[in-house]
Amino acid sequence: MTELFEFGMKILKSQPFSVLIGTELEVFEPGMATLSIPIQDKLKQQHGFVHGGVVSYLADNALTYAGGSVLGDSVTSEYKINYLRPALGEKLIARASVVSSGKTQAVCQCKVFAVANGEERVVALAQGTIRKVNAQK
Amino acid sequence: MTELFEFGMKILKSQPFSVLIGTELEVFEPGMATLSIPIQDKLKQQHGFVHGGVVSYLADNALTYAGGSVLGDSVTSEYKINYLRPALGEKLIARASVVSSGKTQAVCQCKVFAVANGEERVVALAQGTIRKVNAQK
Amino acid sequence: MTELFEFGMKILKSQPFSVLIGTELEVFEPGMATLSIPIQDKLKQQHGFVHGGVVSYLADNALTYAGGSVLGDSVTSEYKINYLRPALGEKLIARASVVSSGKTQAVCQCKVFAVANGEERVVALAQGTIRKVNAQK
Amino acid sequence: MTELFEFGMKILKSQPFSVLIGTELEVFEPGMATLSIPIQDKLKQQHGFVHGGVVSYLADNALTYAGGSVLGDSVTSEYKINYLRPALGEKLIARASVVSSGKTQAVCQCKVFAVANGEERVVALAQGTIRKVNAQK
Repeated sequence: MTELFEFGMKILKSQPFSVLIGTELEVFEPGMATLSIPIQDKLKQQHGFVHGGVVSYLADNALTYAGGSVLGDSVTSEYKINYLRPALGEKLIARASVVSSGKTQAVCQCKVFAVANGEERVVALAQGTIRKVNAQK
Repeated sequence: MTELFEFGMKILKSQPFSVLIGTELEVFEPGMATLSIPIQDKLKQQHGFVHGGVVSYLADNALTYAGGSVLGDSVTSEYKINYLRPALGEKLIARASVVSSGKTQAVCQCKVFAVANGEERVVALAQGTIRKVNAQK
Repeated sequence: MTELFEFGMKILKSQPFSVLIGTELEVFEPGMATLSIPIQDKLKQQHGFVHGGVVSYLADNALTYAGGSVLGDSVTSEYKINYLRPALGEKLIARASVVSSGKTQAVCQCKVFAVANGEERVVALAQGTIRKVNAQK
Repeated sequence: MTELFEFGMKILKSQPFSVLIGTELEVFEPGMATLSIPIQDKLKQQHGFVHGGVVSYLADNALTYAGGSVLGDSVTSEYKINYLRPALGEKLIARASVVSSGKTQAVCQCKVFAVANGEERVVALAQGTIRKVNAQK
């Protein structure tokens, strides 16, 4: 386990909301991050799909992790998400990567997948700006 | 209590994730919706602020409600959010309204506020597209 | 004419692309800006409507002006636009305002209207981040 | 030259604004499109860079072409763009592709590059929704 991955795990465990959701860190390397969530009933909406808010939380967090992998402790400044299809199955996976970064900001993109019966399907596409904490706003 | 408001309450109670978060419907009228969340520790991130994922969940849901108030049962197609400042205090409030709507889509905007010591401060700004469920995609 | 308005006029005249489009500055006050374009055939697409690229150029520029009114010389960092209906008529008008600002960034929103037979109709809605030039990125 | 490419050329030539800008179609295949613009002084802003409005026009148009390659005659419904660095050089190139599509909508992404001294650098990242013309809105 790398130092970066340990740092990522520590952050995730110190976010009560991520603990509530059950988020797991799968990959955390310079320029990229993968987060996942085992799908539970408590994360669903009225039609039995994963609630959009969970999908966008995961995209947002994966974007922050990707940006944070090159910037250090960071927050999401803004992002945009397109929901592509209902999220169903056993697991959600968000893979994010850095497209461009400077000293205090990184622009990242992210795809979210739902795994059903072992098969991955893309369910959302996101893009956003990550800002280093304590950078002048 | 209007029929629309009752419909809105019923949807909210049938979303396990909204029940988990503790979301409340405050206003639900043609063209607008207000949702709120009492801030609890379980909704926070590592710095003690409300997790961005909660803020964007609330904005997303308020956008869907605003669109749904004119379209009927609806989902968010896409949205964009800018986080303006850390969310701290007793309560989050999201106020969304319809800017333009057709038969199957509405474009809505939303401001999210944090209430601390009785004072409201805007913490996020969002804009998105809501699509009627069962409309051809 | 205020000093701010004169500064705004000077910037606009020094942008060859804005001169090519025929953009005019109508209002430029702390926290808000209005830009307009007389609609000419050269600004249209294949269906006879104003090209989306012109509408989004105007929204982008109005966002930058609104942000610049509080930050000084600025550029658009990112923005999002929803096209609401085809733009037809004599004139396009973009009205932008600051929703939140810090020392180096402002988040602004903008509505674009088309004026046909003297009547205004909203044709696009935008939201974005403006960054002070020379701020560390 | 394929039938699709010929169709794409015809659309581009019938857009007066694209003719004014000098846009060229480079690639137009099912699921992807590449558009380019030779950089001329008239497309610049006050600092000598290509105006952001030109960059976002090109991203928007490339997104529409990518979506149109699978949907037929289409328009951009909404998009978001992050400017990554100033655009300088001889040529702008936008490469867009479809991430997900249905009968009436496609979600696409696009990178815009500036070519200076023969070297490409990414200058913008965009993501948006394309809608088939005549699809119920």
